[in-house]
Amino acid sequence: MRDVAVIGIGCTTFGEKWESSFRDLFVEAGALALEDAQLAGEKIDAMYVGNMSAGRFVEQEHIGALIADYAGLATHHIPSTRVEAACASGGLAFRQAVIAVASGMEDIVVAAGVEKMTDVEPGASTDTLTGAADREWEGFVGATFPGLYAMIANDYMHRYPLTREQLAQVAVKNHFNGARNPIAQFQQEISVDTVLKSTLVADPLRLFDCSPITDGAAAVIVAPFERAREFTDTPIKVLASAQASDTITLHDRRDISTLDATVIAGKRALKIARCIHKDIDLVEVHDCFSIAEICAIEDLGFCKKGEAGKLTSDGITALNGDLPVNTSGGLKACGHPVGATGIKQVYEIVQQLRGEADRRQIDGAEIGMTHNVGGTGATVAVHIFGRI
Amino acid sequence: MRDVAVIGIGCTTFGEKWESSFRDLFVEAGALALEDAQLAGEKIDAMYVGNMSAGRFVEQEHIGALIADYAGLATHHIPSTRVEAACASGGLAFRQAVIAVASGMEDIVVAAGVEKMTDVEPGASTDTLTGAADREWEGFVGATFPGLYAMIANDYMHRYPLTREQLAQVAVKNHFNGARNPIAQFQQEISVDTVLKSTLVADPLRLFDCSPITDGAAAVIVAPFERAREFTDTPIKVLASAQASDTITLHDRRDISTLDATVIAGKRALKIARCIHKDIDLVEVHDCFSIAEICAIEDLGFCKKGEAGKLTSDGITALNGDLPVNTSGGLKACGHPVGATGIKQVYEIVQQLRGEADRRQIDGAEIGMTHNVGGTGATVAVHIFGRI
Repeated sequence: MRDVAVIGIGCTTFGEKWESSFRDLFVEAGALALEDAQLAGEKIDAMYVGNMSAGRFVEQEHIGALIADYAGLATHHIPSTRVEAACASGGLAFRQAVIAVASGMEDIVVAAGVEKMTDVEPGASTDTLTGAADREWEGFVGATFPGLYAMIANDYMHRYPLTREQLAQVAVKNHFNGARNPIAQFQQEISVDTVLKSTLVADPLRLFDCSPITDGAAAVIVAPFERAREFTDTPIKVLASAQASDTITLHDRRDISTLDATVIAGKRALKIARCIHKDIDLVEVHDCFSIAEICAIEDLGFCKKGEAGKLTSDGITALNGDLPVNTSGGLKACGHPVGATGIKQVYEIVQQLRGEADRRQIDGAEIGMTHNVGGTGATVAVHIFGRI
Repeated sequence: MRDVAVIGIGCTTFGEKWESSFRDLFVEAGALALEDAQLAGEKIDAMYVGNMSAGRFVEQEHIGALIADYAGLATHHIPSTRVEAACASGGLAFRQAVIAVASGMEDIVVAAGVEKMTDVEPGASTDTLTGAADREWEGFVGATFPGLYAMIANDYMHRYPLTREQLAQVAVKNHFNGARNPIAQFQQEISVDTVLKSTLVADPLRLFDCSPITDGAAAVIVAPFERAREFTDTPIKVLASAQASDTITLHDRRDISTLDATVIAGKRALKIARCIHKDIDLVEVHDCFSIAEICAIEDLGFCKKGEAGKLTSDGITALNGDLPVNTSGGLKACGHPVGATGIKQVYEIVQQLRGEADRRQIDGAEIGMTHNVGGTGATVAVHIFGRI
């Protein structure tokens, strides 16, 4: 297996992008990534694209071919493949791109992610997202994603020390970071009070505990590490790629407050990268809801179960803390265009390791991790990156 | 890159399976494949599943995790990934499984395909399938798949010698083969007259020129070739895996009667396998419509453009001909559960190369090819297999 590096990155701004179609979004992200790598499109050998539900959001399937075509690459007949794992679609598309290069089968591969979520009625998007859970045992009986994560939050708060204020501080921190990220959907700082006084969505989760409905796309380009300096002075090495699955329903889990797929994928990734937790300078975790960030920090092993609330309120996970979490603003402030999120996480870590994160920059960041979750944890992808 | 072999195969019967849910279908196919390989589920390292549109057919996404869970593998937390490329979803899932093993990343990998198409109104399934074409430039203006392939047929018949009777003979041959295949949806022989007197769907295509709406699932298990004999006495080697893309719309093509993605993927596959056409003993091609089989035979290079009609009427592509095409009965007679078709093609070729195809058996078959098309040819996967 060959070593793999990220040689180019691109991302649209995230938000309610009424002026952009599904196609516009990924073309924009892809063009930015090519420009970043100073690469002509015809050098691309293959593409993988993460997308959850274009079939329901824009009535379009066959996304791999569509993207290759609209990117102007149909005449080159490159293999282009869509990968789907609900909210982890982007992370899995990145992983497939890494495997394709690591195997020696392809050299220059684009991993993209895209979701256009706002072209349907609001209720329809919530229902579509329920397709990430178990339609028969969860969706049909009325469970929505806020409802499922509220169950996790209730169970967690019953068993571990986590105050409502600490939970709110996850969102406050992520809005603080998002206010420093030009691609973020919400670039406003908020207070704990903003969260606590926001509309109750699914007790105990309030509006500001939830990631929003978002349009957006992101793309990164990977290449064999040994060739990376042909394209960039700052290649970022992929130190590990790991993926794990779990039961699709919450009620079948051993423990609903611990995402076993996160535990397993996190351990696998650290082992592959030959890293320990202290080596990781920053992490992008999948904070689709504030409680998800709390669980992720613990399940990835950065602290013991029950300690992430205090870690957050003590500022350890803040931009200037010992373990900055979601420097991008996370799903909460950046927004969560489902298929794009996993790639946007890579985009953020690469910016940080290159030293290009501007007002969000973590000084001297050398090793970063991404953590992308599908559904309530039935799929998890963890990647580790290093500045070499 | 390591050599890869197929060590186990399984397939449900195809048809209108009112008694089986989406989940039942893939569990059945997976169990049959495991039984065939005499393998316990916990030996599986990873899964890839091809599925086009469960989001619209059964309102369920996150298919990789769902499958791993219902196959009883959630507790093993294996990576499980859905791949989508419309009607080529199965072929691409197989390709990803091959890449995963060839790369050395995984050892025992399941490639599955599944589609449950009958749980919606008939009109809804036609509309869902239009998601495989360009929704904005084809679907929204009223083009359906029969309509798009009728355009190909009209263009082809205008330019090349192909009679309406020869076109019908594609369906007659495939029904003949399907009548000898226990998994086929239609196990009845038909005559040219049956085709010519059937309902006109999209001129010149009649009902019996079209593959049907079908439920079904298929699964195959791949492993490193060097380990294959641990599991089976008849490993079938994967000699080549190739994939190509093209414009998603017909009107953007250089030539609508030649599927360039088939031409390119076919050439790539032969080159990788170090084969010439004469080495290929049989082919499963993507006959979603009768005209598609005509184009496929030519575009894969088995004869010149314009000759496949005569090849068919001369019986060359029949079971007892020099180049048996679609010994399974093809999409026409087996049915076309979209995501499953690419895997079912592999299932057929492996049966043939093992000598287990019973009344469809091609004596002495040593090398076989599969050809799986997405949409009207925007994605094509070609694989070549050998008995070693």
